[in-house]
Amino acid sequence: MPTTEAEAAFELGIKFGALFHQFIGTPVSPGSAASLTTAIEESIENQPGTEAVSVAIDEEALSADLGPHGYTGLRGRHLVVEIELLHEGRRARGSMAYVDGYPLMTLDELE
Amino acid sequence: MPTTEAEAAFELGIKFGALFHQFIGTPVSPGSAASLTTAIEESIENQPGTEAVSVAIDEEALSADLGPHGYTGLRGRHLVVEIELLHEGRRARGSMAYVDGYPLMTLDELE
Amino acid sequence: MPTTEAEAAFELGIKFGALFHQFIGTPVSPGSAASLTTAIEESIENQPGTEAVSVAIDEEALSADLGPHGYTGLRGRHLVVEIELLHEGRRARGSMAYVDGYPLMTLDELE
Amino acid sequence: MPTTEAEAAFELGIKFGALFHQFIGTPVSPGSAASLTTAIEESIENQPGTEAVSVAIDEEALSADLGPHGYTGLRGRHLVVEIELLHEGRRARGSMAYVDGYPLMTLDELE
Repeated sequence: MPTTEAEAAFELGIKFGALFHQFIGTPVSPGSAASLTTAIEESIENQPGTEAVSVAIDEEALSADLGPHGYTGLRGRHLVVEIELLHEGRRARGSMAYVDGYPLMTLDELE
Repeated sequence: MPTTEAEAAFELGIKFGALFHQFIGTPVSPGSAASLTTAIEESIENQPGTEAVSVAIDEEALSADLGPHGYTGLRGRHLVVEIELLHEGRRARGSMAYVDGYPLMTLDELE
Repeated sequence: MPTTEAEAAFELGIKFGALFHQFIGTPVSPGSAASLTTAIEESIENQPGTEAVSVAIDEEALSADLGPHGYTGLRGRHLVVEIELLHEGRRARGSMAYVDGYPLMTLDELE
Repeated sequence: MPTTEAEAAFELGIKFGALFHQFIGTPVSPGSAASLTTAIEESIENQPGTEAVSVAIDEEALSADLGPHGYTGLRGRHLVVEIELLHEGRRARGSMAYVDGYPLMTLDELE
């Protein structure tokens, strides 16, 4: 039987996978980044156990990708994410950042 | 050669397909519906030619679908959408609504 | 520091969240279900550590949802999924099924 | 009142927007590209009026984007798409290709 600790880690992983694959490709520009980050946060906070979701779009990375019409599709390298979750008394925290060409999701703390 | 009128209609269709398939499945609840509709509007308004995007989430349809955790995935039957677009002097307007179990997208005006 | 066990569970959760939110909403019919399940399996098997992904679309649930044009958007209640993953010597297995109106993802085994 | 010609163009646009935003971000590698293109074709062919969908993933563009784990998320620059549609006797054909850093969708023929 998995422990509640492992279950909390599993639940946290679900949120990262969901966040990434729901919103990747969303048309985004410097002007619309704020409403998108708010919507992503409030959307994922709906999921069970989620205590806090913090999403930032890296302005420099975004600006470097803007196409001829002044926007681009949201990509992993634009995103910095932190999620904190509570599952049956266990607290799990993780983050996502772009490392070596890959949107790396890590389990940072588990209590 | 397609006319600029037909091109405007084509461009408008792209926006409807994009909006629907980018955001369907997004976790949404009565409390997060407002930030989601704003983000959808601002996101699609980034696309070339788009003049105005209006998105509403039908509160009654959404409430009927809420699962055991108080949220659900966004579905076509929750959405009412209007998009207006300008392409080389041609104005196209369309809408999406749920009709007979289907998220029907229609081209309403073309000038 | 999280254990490798918890990390394996976290990694497995990522795959479930990714699978669900990438493919929900995909137009699907009885005739196209087979190619879609194959593509979902091979897609998620690309992700690090994934050993096996098994996806089935419940024909009865799908048939009940077909709209006026003979297809619908893929929903959680159409899907039965199993994923097995290996992370630093730890094996994690989980599944997704539709329970009480909710696409429940569970961590079934962790060795 | 929009003409049936314009409606055909609108319907075709919907398919391009749907295809792009449903599948962008899907984990893909040289080994899984074939099942993904088949699934995309069969998925979009479900949509009303669609006669034929042809999807190719540019192997060179894909290989250039592979991350440290041998796969990447599907992007516009990997895709070459053609769609043909019939709407009330009108035939519309369009294509998508990557031009100047942008996934350009064009209405090529309308009869």
